[in-house]
Order: sequence, then structure tokens, then C-alpha cells
Amino acid sequence: MSHRIVFTPSGKRGEFEDGVSVLEAARKLGVDLDSVCGGRGICSRCQIEIAQGEFSKHALVSSADHATPWNAVEQRYVDKRGALKPGRRLGCQARLSGDLVVDVPPESQVHRQVVRKRAQTHPIVIDPIVRLYYVEVAEPDMHDPSSDLRRVQNALREQWSIGEARASLSVLAGLQKTLRAGGWKVTVALRKGEEIVAAYPGFVDRAYGVAFDIGSTTIAAHLCDLESGEVLASQGMMNPQIRFGEDLMSRVSYVMMNPGGERELTAAVRAAVDSLIGEAAREAGVERASILEVTVAGNPIMHHLFLGLDPTELGGAPFALTLDGGYEVRAAEVGLQIAPGGYVYALPCIAGHVGADAAGVALAEAPYLRDELTLIADVGTNAEILFGNKDGLLACSSPTGPAFEGAQISCGQRAAPGAIERVRIDRETLEPRFKVIGCDFWSDEPGFADVAVTGVCGSGVIEVIAEMFLSRIISQDGLFDGALAESSPRIEPVGRSFAYVLHEGEPRLLIYQTDVRAIQLAKAALYAGAKLLIDKRGAGPPARVTLVGAFGNHIDTTYAMALGLIPDCDLSAVVNGGNSAGDGARIALLNLAARAEIEEVVRRIEKIETAIEPNFQAEFVAAMALPHASDSFENLARAIKLPQRRTTEGGRRRRRP
Amino acid sequence: MSHRIVFTPSGKRGEFEDGVSVLEAARKLGVDLDSVCGGRGICSRCQIEIAQGEFSKHALVSSADHATPWNAVEQRYVDKRGALKPGRRLGCQARLSGDLVVDVPPESQVHRQVVRKRAQTHPIVIDPIVRLYYVEVAEPDMHDPSSDLRRVQNALREQWSIGEARASLSVLAGLQKTLRAGGWKVTVALRKGEEIVAAYPGFVDRAYGVAFDIGSTTIAAHLCDLESGEVLASQGMMNPQIRFGEDLMSRVSYVMMNPGGERELTAAVRAAVDSLIGEAAREAGVERASILEVTVAGNPIMHHLFLGLDPTELGGAPFALTLDGGYEVRAAEVGLQIAPGGYVYALPCIAGHVGADAAGVALAEAPYLRDELTLIADVGTNAEILFGNKDGLLACSSPTGPAFEGAQISCGQRAAPGAIERVRIDRETLEPRFKVIGCDFWSDEPGFADVAVTGVCGSGVIEVIAEMFLSRIISQDGLFDGALAESSPRIEPVGRSFAYVLHEGEPRLLIYQTDVRAIQLAKAALYAGAKLLIDKRGAGPPARVTLVGAFGNHIDTTYAMALGLIPDCDLSAVVNGGNSAGDGARIALLNLAARAEIEEVVRRIEKIETAIEPNFQAEFVAAMALPHASDSFENLARAIKLPQRRTTEGGRRRRRP
Repeated sequence: MSHRIVFTPSGKRGEFEDGVSVLEAARKLGVDLDSVCGGRGICSRCQIEIAQGEFSKHALVSSADHATPWNAVEQRYVDKRGALKPGRRLGCQARLSGDLVVDVPPESQVHRQVVRKRAQTHPIVIDPIVRLYYVEVAEPDMHDPSSDLRRVQNALREQWSIGEARASLSVLAGLQKTLRAGGWKVTVALRKGEEIVAAYPGFVDRAYGVAFDIGSTTIAAHLCDLESGEVLASQGMMNPQIRFGEDLMSRVSYVMMNPGGERELTAAVRAAVDSLIGEAAREAGVERASILEVTVAGNPIMHHLFLGLDPTELGGAPFALTLDGGYEVRAAEVGLQIAPGGYVYALPCIAGHVGADAAGVALAEAPYLRDELTLIADVGTNAEILFGNKDGLLACSSPTGPAFEGAQISCGQRAAPGAIERVRIDRETLEPRFKVIGCDFWSDEPGFADVAVTGVCGSGVIEVIAEMFLSRIISQDGLFDGALAESSPRIEPVGRSFAYVLHEGEPRLLIYQTDVRAIQLAKAALYAGAKLLIDKRGAGPPARVTLVGAFGNHIDTTYAMALGLIPDCDLSAVVNGGNSAGDGARIALLNLAARAEIEEVVRRIEKIETAIEPNFQAEFVAAMALPHASDSFENLARAIKLPQRRTTEGGRRRRRP
Repeated sequence: MSHRIVFTPSGKRGEFEDGVSVLEAARKLGVDLDSVCGGRGICSRCQIEIAQGEFSKHALVSSADHATPWNAVEQRYVDKRGALKPGRRLGCQARLSGDLVVDVPPESQVHRQVVRKRAQTHPIVIDPIVRLYYVEVAEPDMHDPSSDLRRVQNALREQWSIGEARASLSVLAGLQKTLRAGGWKVTVALRKGEEIVAAYPGFVDRAYGVAFDIGSTTIAAHLCDLESGEVLASQGMMNPQIRFGEDLMSRVSYVMMNPGGERELTAAVRAAVDSLIGEAAREAGVERASILEVTVAGNPIMHHLFLGLDPTELGGAPFALTLDGGYEVRAAEVGLQIAPGGYVYALPCIAGHVGADAAGVALAEAPYLRDELTLIADVGTNAEILFGNKDGLLACSSPTGPAFEGAQISCGQRAAPGAIERVRIDRETLEPRFKVIGCDFWSDEPGFADVAVTGVCGSGVIEVIAEMFLSRIISQDGLFDGALAESSPRIEPVGRSFAYVLHEGEPRLLIYQTDVRAIQLAKAALYAGAKLLIDKRGAGPPARVTLVGAFGNHIDTTYAMALGLIPDCDLSAVVNGGNSAGDGARIALLNLAARAEIEEVVRRIEKIETAIEPNFQAEFVAAMALPHASDSFENLARAIKLPQRRTTEGGRRRRRP
């Protein structure tokens, strides 16, 4: 006697003998129904719901009575682990005794979609790189002298239909004890269905991974549940390579001056990454041995140093990478202590200046899936810029220098408590008010009184210079209006130039002409890089602009436009994109197909080298003025509530370009 | 215009456009014609001969004039490197201008057959695991920011039609400098056509490998040219693990008593193997970086310890291996310094007592290719025994103990200068004469005078006991004929028993009753193991018997039969097989297909565990007598020129069984 079964939402259907379990039927039909324990009623991953009623489309009547009754295994599960949701049964226990329509709820599917926090970006679909399989392994026997590995392979084949899986020596070295500790019942972690990367005694149903964004300044780690996609712990630390040089080029110089120095830099970054794994594991309360996979995004120099490749060639033209494709390597080979056979996947690099961090951004923002032209800029010491849509993507890196990060600014500092991050200047009195990191009050509010002010961080620098411009303290060319020194104590003569007094106190914070120049150079570089890509594509301005990275995420988009950081477009189209490089690493951690996707996208990206583009220098010079385009200035003036243009005082009349 | 071309000896043929080179035509037709330089006239591997005359079978006329004339590239080669053999041309330079019959001489074929020293065993066919490819790589360019690896991959694809090859980090780490040192002309070593394991600046056409037999007592290494198969250097050393215990079981005990002790044993054996690589490389005058592959045979405990797997489970029933299949691992992972991406291949283990050394023996002797039933015994502390033919193979290990190696024998010692290795006893006077290792004279010859005698090695023990039996000093039961003590000073009472005085001097060497017993036990174990397999198979006695290994190779087969080491068979069928385990490792080094072959054979072998075979113990007890079978005794007596049976003296009458 056979019965029909239809699965929803997949619509897959078939006919099976009386007594076949719902899980077996699902497997045979290729229905996405999860299981770790292989039908032993331990893991509860295969929960299903039996639909009630007449399904005319399939000409069948489904009823809970058409499955074998609730059984002792299910009762044992509920007694030990708690009740199932109403209407749910274990798919491995419910067996066909009549026609059935079976619903597979989302949480019982292996390939689950995880909603991301921002609606703009595409959701992460869980597509596990590593899956857990509970197996009961035959004991060794004098009559059958096969090895421990062979018997595990046999169990995987017999109980899960998995072909001969290989195992590294480090996994094999622990296999003996694991099998004996588990009484020949173990959970095997299988990577890509072909390699055993860990084995645990008994039944285990949680596996973890860590996604890294290795920046020149900071390293960020996100420990995720590989099955739910949930971020269980996030940790960050300063990149310890800073002791070899603040910026990337000084680290490359260190390597050039100290033969073998790359090994020190490599050891430093690997140790930092490994210690973050330890801290994230502690925070999440998981064992290192439960961490099965690590993904890494980072700029080309960090990418190469982490992998142990000499970055010297990246220090000068033609900026030749040693490796550009996505790359996987055993974690132990790069000094990381995770599961014995665990792997590290490094995202691909786009070009010598546009690294695996930019690939992570591309993967997270996915402009290659969109119709509208999208400009994405990851602003740091260099700005990595992507532009395009599903018809093609261009990429370049533009040398913004460190001004946007507060470096090379006289009163600049990194974003940290005490740093001014927001600035407003009264258009009439030219008096500033500001906010500092670590305090919720503005400087003119009573609660602010005792707050220590230590400097100005990147976003604060942007705002103060934009406000100086909007208050006409500086001209479109970035020059101080010296006449104001007579009417305002905030404008102070300094040598043959002037400075704006942002903060009286200890320390006294002044914005000098050189600071304005540094920001002008940085913003011109960003602007010119973006313009270059837009012109190359020749399909018009971006319909979306996303500023990503630590700085891009923090910057007020209105001020970014006010300063002319990016070519003219509708202010509403400009958004902060968050930590996209890290998000990209997380997607690559959770979704195997995403790796092939980004590798393919990176291969197809048109790489533009600004240094050899004849137009770049001209665009760069032209972009020095503030703001470059008049239309956007008007828009911005409205957005930031610029006061009426004053025409009575000659020296402060705004020159139109 | 097109022309016909026929290759001999393959018979492959096709039609090609005028001007196509013979090498190109060969590649398109799948003809086995070698090339390392890819048709640049550098390597001369593609030498061919053009046949002259009319080939009616193919209806074509071939002539040297039907190829383009001898050209400047060929002349340059001859000027720089010396003349080609008469009639030879470079296949990459000779181009079709008419119909051709082209002979590919054996040395121009990739898959060459190398004749082995012994006619019985199957010849080694070279089937390279690693091949060298000379490529000209594009220089990096600001307009095309692809990586060094990508450009090498592109060159392999364009110049050799090889798909995307991967590379380990250690190879990548050196790739930059290699490319620049070679001026973008490099030779790439490609493993299995899919992984770059080394890259060298410029043109290189020699690659090497080392085959190991890791024994409990000694480790032997053979450095081979991977292309010619030639052994360029052989090195051996004592296994340094001896300091942890003389025999295998005492080393396992060490591990059991000292948690983590397996790591010391692993480090010791890996260091020894690595130092032998260094010594063999020095002897052959090659760089370690030119050694691309290592193969390893060894008993299960050595196999596991070398790979870093705890051997504890192999110390007791059920003797569970951790790993039994053939296994490859990067050389660096097991502490060997060869080419940066080079691999080690460990041969498969047959069972917990029958290791990768026995697999090596099986591969070298290849009984599975033969019609006649073959018995192969590798005699050491245990005897690994194989029996069968192309219809099936059985294997077991029998606990002979160390007596055959001279251990547990009162005057026993390892085979070394000063050890008695050959013994003859006068049937009438019972006076011995003997030879010692390191001296060509017998002890009763004048040249022997000053030679120091230190002990008796394994083969010497066999011979003295066999001679004692043939001289009727001991009976078939192995008991001394005490009556002889009265007539011969060579028979000396010792307590309640007797001893035979083999050597008067310093030290005095005596063969005691306990020594006879030890050899009886050892030979009974070997006999019973062989008998078990023969009986299991039930197809009759062996038509061939091969004794392999250091001891098996040294033993006089006549004395082996005299002592009854192996079941009855024609004395002429018994041969010494040489160092078959090492030969097997060498075959696996030179022939990729041989690895799959032996893995498959090992899977199919019927494994017999003597410990649980009910008949084994009875056979063992029955086999204690000397010699077991009367017929063979008669044969042997003739072979060894046994004097006429003496019937006049009662106590010396030989009892018939």
C-alpha cells in the first residue's frame, strides 16, 4: 500500500510505501528539511506540520490521522527538551499511514533566509559551508580490521548517503579519542560535504564561525551561529601592527627596510586575530573547537600580510598582488586555533589598491544585483570606490590620505571619548557648539559642563570645515576671510593666515588654513575618483550613493555633500551603509554560494588605476573648491538651514563660480 | 593544404594543416611526446625521428623532406647542448610540409618503462605525479591588475592548456621573487595537473623525489629522478626511536606510560626522515627545493607515528588503525623540508598488524597480477605474509618475535661487521667453519686470521641451527643429542642441557638449548601463518615463494627450507625478493596510477587475524619440529650435501616422523 505526500512550500510531491517517515520522503524528494541526528529523534530539526483538509489541487485529503500516532521518541524529546509548537511533530517519527500535505516551517529548512537590519541590502540566505552529522559508528573488530576513519566514512555513507570524506591529520589525531569518548556515537562536522573538519563525542547541534574585517587601524570580529546566522559576539581591537607604522605604507617601508620584517607583521596580525577568536568565544560562551570556519576581509596589504605573503610589491607601481582570487587555507596554517580541521576563507582582492575589504563591501551592498546605478565609497586612508549596476561594475582606489580619519589635522584625533564629532557654527556670531564622543549633550547645554574635550575626530573635522564654509568663514577656494578677524574673536590671525578657534580650554582647538587644505585634498581625491568611474561608465550620475566603513558610516551625509565629497546627486539618495566589509565577510561565512558569487563579480569588475588615468589629475584639481556644484549647494543650504545670503558686507559676499 | 601524419609506435594518426609542428600534432592526437619548454627548442624532450619510405598500410610516402628543414632553433640547441642522435629532430621545430610517419623514441615518451633489476617483478612505468612546465608569464601592468598567481595560471592555460592550478601559501610566498628573478620566465612544477608545488626561475628540467621504508630498526631512503626513475642516492640510518624502546611494543608502552609521548616519537622519526632527505640530496648533488614528492612505507606503528597519530590502539586488541587508506599530506605538515608545496604520500595499511610496508611489498611483487599462487613473507619481528594470485590475495601477520633478527639469541647481534652470517658444520667431526660480515674468507682459510668475531646475526643463527640439525646435534624436536658431548668437545654440558660451541675466542659463542627453542618458535609462527593462508585459500601450495625484507633477502633459501620456515614446496620456487617494501615506495613515487592500484588491491585483500583463528595455535605447535615435512628434508639434504645417514651409532639415528 502506498500513500501520496505533498510538501509545502516547495510543492514537491511523491508516492511512498506505508510506514515511510516524513523525513525519509523529504530526503528522497529533495525537500529542504533539516536533520542533524539522522532520524533518531534527538535534534528536533526536522519539525513539520501536517495540514488538515481537502486539497483539491492534489486530489487528496490530508489529516493528522494519516500519520502514525505521536510516539515514545517524540514524548522522550518533549520530556527532556520541552514542548514543540502546537501542531508540530518530528518528521523522522511521523510515518505515512495515509495521504499527507506536510508543511516545512522556515526554521526546519537548511537554507534559511536571515533578514538583515537594513532593508536596502540583500538578505543573507544561510547556505552552510559546514554541516553537522550525528553518526553511530561501528566498533573496531578483529574480524574487520578497517580503520577508525574508514568506519566513520562507512557510517556517513550508510546513515547519510555521503561519499568518502577526507580528513586532515589534525582531525585524525583526535578521532580515536573522540570515538571512544562518545561510545562510538559522534557528531561529525563536514565541510562542503567532502572533508571532516571536526568530530565531537555524542550529539552536538551547534556550529560557529567568525567573520573578520582586518583594517589597518582596527580589527573587528563577529562570531556567528553558522546555522541561524545570528551574531553571538562582536569584538574589536587595534591592529597591533601599528607599532610597525601608523599607516599601510609605513608598514610596507618597514618590510622593505627590515628583510624578513613581513614575518613579524604577519605574526602580529595573526596573533591579534587569534586572540579575538578567543575573546569572541568567551563572550559567546562557546569552545574554540566549536568554531569551524573563519572568513577574512581586509585591504590588499592586510590580506597579504595575514596570509604571510610579502606586501613589498604592493608598495609601488605596478602594485602587483601575489594572489587575487578567493582563497581557502587551513586555519592552523595561519596560526588560528579553531576546530582541528577548520578553514579560513579570504575574500578575493579586486586590485593592488582595492582589496578583499572592497570585495566584502561589494558582496554586502550587491550593486551588481541592482538596476539603478550605485556609487559606494569606503573612506579611509584611501577611498575604495565602486560604481555600477547589474550591467557592470567599476572600481578604483583614490588617495584621500588620512585627513578624513583625523590624522594630519592639527587638532585631529581618532574617534574616541573626548573627540568632537558634531559641530554647528552660528551663522551670525560665528560661535561654535559641538558634541563630543561619550556625552549626549551639546556643548552649550547645561549637562555638558565637566566634559573633557581632547580633539576633533574625522566626522567632526568634516562638520567644522563645512560649517566654516556655510558660515562664510572660508571661501569656496578654502581661504579664510581675514576681514572677519576684526568682528569675531573666533577668527584669529596666525602668521600670514588665520585660524578658527573651535574650543577655548585645555587643549585649545584651532582649525588652521593647513587643516582646511588637507580636507580639501582628501575630498578632491574622493570626488575625482568617483567622477572618474561615473565618466568611464558614461551612463549618468548615481541613483544611490552609499558611504560605508567606520568613517563613512559616521559621517553626516548632508555635510559630506556640503563639502562636495561626492559628485552631484540628490541628497536623499546618499545613505550610510554601515560596516559593509565586515558584513561581506559575514555573508561569505554563512553562504557558500556567496563565495563563488563574489569571486565571479570581482573577476568581472573593471579595475581603474587612477594613477594612469589622464583625466584624474585635472578632475582632482577642479574638485578642490567647496562645494563643486552650485545646485547641490543650494539644496544643502536648505537642508542645513543656511541663513539668508548677506549682501551688505563686501568681504563676506559669496562668490559664485 | 593539409598533410597526413602517423605516429609510431602508438599508431595514432591525423591530418593537419601545412606548417603545424610535429609536437602540436602529437598533442592534438594524444600521442605521448614529452616537452618541458612548451615548444621553445630548449628542453629537447620532444625528439622524434622521421621515417623514410612508402607505408602502404597508410597509403603514404614519408620522407625527411616532408618536414620543414633543420632550423636555427635546432642549430642553437645543438651548438649549446651538443648533437642529437643521428636522424633526430626537435618535434617542436619540424613542421609538416608533406605526409609523415614519425617515430617517438622511448626516451621522448612521458610514460617510460624502466626495467627493474629482477626479471620476476613487474617493471616500473614512469607515470609522473609531478611534471615541469616552462612558461613565459606576463609582467604585471597597471592596466591589468591581476595577481602573480593569476598570470602564472594564465600562462599555463595559454601555453599548456592547463586549467586553473591552485597553490599553497608556501608556494605563493616565494612566487613573487621567483617570477622577478627569472625575468618572468619560470618553470612550474605541477602536481596531478592541478596544484603548483614549486616554481623555479628560468628553465629547469629535472625533478626529484624520495622513497622511504621506515622500519622499526632502520630507515632507508632512495632519492630518484622523477623522470628517468633512476636512483641517484640511497641512504639509511638507525631509527632514532630506538632510544624509546628496541621493539615496537616497547615504544607503544612508552606512549602509554608517558602521556604525549607519541609526540616525542613522532618528532624523532620525522627528524630522521628529514635528515636522510638532506643526506640523500647532498649525495646526489641536488637541492632540497628540487625534491617534489616523498613516499613512505612502514609498519602500522611507524606509519601512525610518522603521521602524528597515536599508536596506542595498535598495542592491543582489536588493533584498530586510525587510518588505513593511502594518504597524502603536505611535506611541511609532517616537518619535511622539500619543495615548498611538495607532498608526502603514505602507502595504505592493510590491517592493524600488516602495514604500509606490506602494501609496498604487494605493490613491488604484484602477486595480484599473476596466475601462479605466490607466497610472500616479509620477516622481521613479525612476519607479514601475503598469499594468492590475480584471483585474490590474503594477508596476515604472524608473531615470529625478534629471534630471526638475532635478538633473544644468547650470542645474537644485528647484521654488522664481525657478525657470523654463514655457518657450516662438518657432519663427522662437528667442527664449524663460518664467515663473518666484512670478510670474504671462511674461518678455516688463511686470510681469515685476524678477523674479530663479535656475535651471530639472523642469517647466521638460521644456518647454525639448520647445520646443527643436519649434523644431528639436535633432533627433529630441537633437543640436543647429549651423547655427543662424550665424543666432541663442541658439545658442552650446560646445567641439565647442552650447548654447541660455535666459536672459541673472545667472546666465546655458544648456541644454547634456549636459542634453538627461540628459533623453533619463530619458524613455527612463520610456518603456521603461511599455512593458515594456504589452507584458507584452499587452492594448493604456492608455486612461488618470495622472502623479502632485510632478513628475507639475506637468508639462504635452502637453509630456510631446511629449518622448515615455510610450508613444503619445490626449493627452486623459493627466492629472495630484495627490499620490496622500499621498492613499493619507489614505484608509488614514480607511478601515479600505482597508488590507486595498491589502494584498490589493499581494500580487496582478505585480512586474516591469526589471534582469532582457531587452527592457528594447533598449526603453530605442530610446526615446532624440524623440519616439518620429510620430502623437503630429503631434497634439502641433497641440496646441502648431507652425508649418508649413519646407522651404526644408536643415539644419532634420525627418527622419521
